Amino acid sequence: MRRGFYIGRFQPYHNGHQSVLEHIADEVDEIVIGIGSAQLSHLADNPFTAGERVLMITRALASLGCPFYVIPIEDIRRNALWVAHVRSMTPLFDLCYSSNPLVVQLFKEAGITVQSPAMYERETLSGTAIRTRMLNRAPWKNLVPPAVVQVLKEIDGVERLRQISKND
Amino acid sequence: MRRGFYIGRFQPYHNGHQSVLEHIADEVDEIVIGIGSAQLSHLADNPFTAGERVLMITRALASLGCPFYVIPIEDIRRNALWVAHVRSMTPLFDLCYSSNPLVVQLFKEAGITVQSPAMYERETLSGTAIRTRMLNRAPWKNLVPPAVVQVLKEIDGVERLRQISKND
Amino acid sequence: MRRGFYIGRFQPYHNGHQSVLEHIADEVDEIVIGIGSAQLSHLADNPFTAGERVLMITRALASLGCPFYVIPIEDIRRNALWVAHVRSMTPLFDLCYSSNPLVVQLFKEAGITVQSPAMYERETLSGTAIRTRMLNRAPWKNLVPPAVVQVLKEIDGVERLRQISKND
Amino acid sequence: MRRGFYIGRFQPYHNGHQSVLEHIADEVDEIVIGIGSAQLSHLADNPFTAGERVLMITRALASLGCPFYVIPIEDIRRNALWVAHVRSMTPLFDLCYSSNPLVVQLFKEAGITVQSPAMYERETLSGTAIRTRMLNRAPWKNLVPPAVVQVLKEIDGVERLRQISKND
Amino acid sequence: MRRGFYIGRFQPYHNGHQSVLEHIADEVDEIVIGIGSAQLSHLADNPFTAGERVLMITRALASLGCPFYVIPIEDIRRNALWVAHVRSMTPLFDLCYSSNPLVVQLFKEAGITVQSPAMYERETLSGTAIRTRMLNRAPWKNLVPPAVVQVLKEIDGVERLRQISKND
Amino acid sequence: MRRGFYIGRFQPYHNGHQSVLEHIADEVDEIVIGIGSAQLSHLADNPFTAGERVLMITRALASLGCPFYVIPIEDIRRNALWVAHVRSMTPLFDLCYSSNPLVVQLFKEAGITVQSPAMYERETLSGTAIRTRMLNRAPWKNLVPPAVVQVLKEIDGVERLRQISKND
Repeated sequence: MRRGFYIGRFQPYHNGHQSVLEHIADEVDEIVIGIGSAQLSHLADNPFTAGERVLMITRALASLGCPFYVIPIEDIRRNALWVAHVRSMTPLFDLCYSSNPLVVQLFKEAGITVQSPAMYERETLSGTAIRTRMLNRAPWKNLVPPAVVQVLKEIDGVERLRQISKND
Repeated sequence: MRRGFYIGRFQPYHNGHQSVLEHIADEVDEIVIGIGSAQLSHLADNPFTAGERVLMITRALASLGCPFYVIPIEDIRRNALWVAHVRSMTPLFDLCYSSNPLVVQLFKEAGITVQSPAMYERETLSGTAIRTRMLNRAPWKNLVPPAVVQVLKEIDGVERLRQISKND
Repeated sequence: MRRGFYIGRFQPYHNGHQSVLEHIADEVDEIVIGIGSAQLSHLADNPFTAGERVLMITRALASLGCPFYVIPIEDIRRNALWVAHVRSMTPLFDLCYSSNPLVVQLFKEAGITVQSPAMYERETLSGTAIRTRMLNRAPWKNLVPPAVVQVLKEIDGVERLRQISKND
Repeated sequence: MRRGFYIGRFQPYHNGHQSVLEHIADEVDEIVIGIGSAQLSHLADNPFTAGERVLMITRALASLGCPFYVIPIEDIRRNALWVAHVRSMTPLFDLCYSSNPLVVQLFKEAGITVQSPAMYERETLSGTAIRTRMLNRAPWKNLVPPAVVQVLKEIDGVERLRQISKND
Repeated sequence: MRRGFYIGRFQPYHNGHQSVLEHIADEVDEIVIGIGSAQLSHLADNPFTAGERVLMITRALASLGCPFYVIPIEDIRRNALWVAHVRSMTPLFDLCYSSNPLVVQLFKEAGITVQSPAMYERETLSGTAIRTRMLNRAPWKNLVPPAVVQVLKEIDGVERLRQISKND
Repeated sequence: MRRGFYIGRFQPYHNGHQSVLEHIADEVDEIVIGIGSAQLSHLADNPFTAGERVLMITRALASLGCPFYVIPIEDIRRNALWVAHVRSMTPLFDLCYSSNPLVVQLFKEAGITVQSPAMYERETLSGTAIRTRMLNRAPWKNLVPPAVVQVLKEIDGVERLRQISKND
């Protein structure tokens, strides 16, 4: 039994994440998906709650064909403790998938295998780029799974992002 | 779509929890299961990590026939904020199932419907009773789902409980 | 200008507090009232929120004839920092009124004058005694100022205390 | 009985705040004034302690003619919990006055009525502008109530701001 | 180079600690001494600050003949993260000396060698027993190194313990 | 007996720190060295753990000829409490050495004498400048004591800094 770990902030969950997870699903028996900065929401760069992100991810992966866990991970602001924190909140995993240099370094120092999946179309497929499009009223729905469009509609998420991004 | 919320500490997850969740599964479309005191582990009354509890619950409910989410919820030690905390970490739910008087009161003050499911065999089917049996080497495996026996074996959980319960 | 500091948890505010404050009002020009453990509520021994306690105190002292400030003080769980914490949250004061041995010691070590006011009828005029009476449906309204009876009625406070004091 | 809530950081309290509060005083029976980021002080953009700000506000509003409460509110860095946090620290209020887009959004999501008072002369009447004037030794005393000038003198506040704003 | 780790709360540091450390000094090249619950002080069971305990230990070990580090370790209340926390605050060590069952378990799960040194005269040589003697005015100076008697005199430590142990 | 306090983040400890401490060693009987932001590590501007910094300092000062204490100090993000925090973690000191304007102000408000030692070659002898050189593969070993070069080699510190400084 091989279990892989993948972490992101998913603000919002998009096609880049989906594509990486479909790739991981071919390599492991189970996937643990960590939602980073789970405690943050209603911020211009972290607009959605952990619960809303759980919903986006779970629905978008409904037909993944590989069992997965979706686990909110609150920040602890102590890098030297972060791997232990992640491991305490998740089912035991054998390897970690990440392209984030800090995540890579922390897992390596903890003796855990890390693979860095290729992220294609990194320019357009990023949370920052998508939130900017939402603010600018540029097209964004093609960049996220249909389930995410649906969740954002239910929670009126784009309107929330616009409101909290206004200057005071 | 009707979503119900159920919370416990699940130290460990046992047949009483299983029976309540099977009952809830008949009444709602989706269940959100919150793992309370998620940050605690390696304590005589909170021996298992959130990740270990996620595993117990997910495996035990594999054939529930009702979609469910398992979400670790760290304590915030601020009762007046606890409902908002829970809601930020979970997909939106319509009603809460709980027999805990404090949980009932907090959700009621927040205007959320609460139902108190009957817990049968409360004397034997409680985390405290089961941990005491583990310490006393009394039979306990019949009180939890087979999947929980398996997880506890994988993590050597009973031995951990015995070690940390020793007097210094 | 002489300003005195008085701190309590005020769960609830009662005639003992009122009597001490009326006495202090004769000795100083302004009173700073700190509400300790401000972050706690909905607990058997800390049932009321800081905001509810602010209301009890402010109304009960409406005709005190001495200006006063009512300041919620959250716990910091670091005794060596507590005096600095209190002073950062309050207008500068010259002396402290307290009978609590820890408070007395901490202020003395910080070089601040402490006076210990006599508390009469300590047996009946204590938060613990009054909460016990509320739970046992014994008379309690004569032990608190009329304004406190009114606030507790508005927030359904006695019912809350009873609900959260039930055994799970 | 109608109670309104107004929040600011008040670094320092100035004529813009005073003018808004005088306007609110005409519309409600009581005002709850929350001092945001109460735990911060001795920073270039948050130089004054909560207690010093309590003093500025209370003295400046001495002749307001409307009862008011001044409540320090520590940050919780969890936007989804912030409204519950505020409500736990304050007497119950019916509506909120704010022009801050985040505050407006958070209260709206919590189902609380929000009004955005007009802030006139926003350019000069802002904490940032006034602190810059203090640093540049430009005139600022005409921008704050006389009571604030007095408090700043007592605590040697301008000198503190200058010292902590120096480059290391 | 062999470095050993030893942790205690040292409330106060006594002859039992001294004897264990002298024993460890024979086995390793350097000793790292962690002061647990460093953030606590002015409590009946944790009367002395971390700084006061640093002083007791450093002076008492002045002629140990083995280099040592004395490091305050604040609690993190997350057992699963505690070993990572300790390691981030200390020079790298090879083995841990502890008789505390929880410490033993946590280091073992982290793959670190643990040795449990014999503690002789455990009944009289314990922080609890010594604090009780201080409160009861029974002889205690023969149970701690002379340097600890000296530090306690300088800080008036016994008087502090008596004052904070009074009933309110 | 005269004890002086000196604080820095020591990311890394360098010849500028060494020179100041050698100067202080001539003026006092004992030195307390506080390691600021002790909880931070694995960040581009705070790459090294507190324990690693303890090691750098202790080894570099092996032949100082003046007794010293090295104490990790975690941030508390409450400037008004910071001096009390520092004092609770350290042996009592009589004066503070610092050139940091905030530190100077906080100690002065607490009534503690502060001296600002001259820092020569501030341009090159700063943590920021040295980390930049490490990233740019410019010479840096001549800017720190030999013991620091040795510690950084043992922990592979420069490689860690490079890895975590990469863009995601």
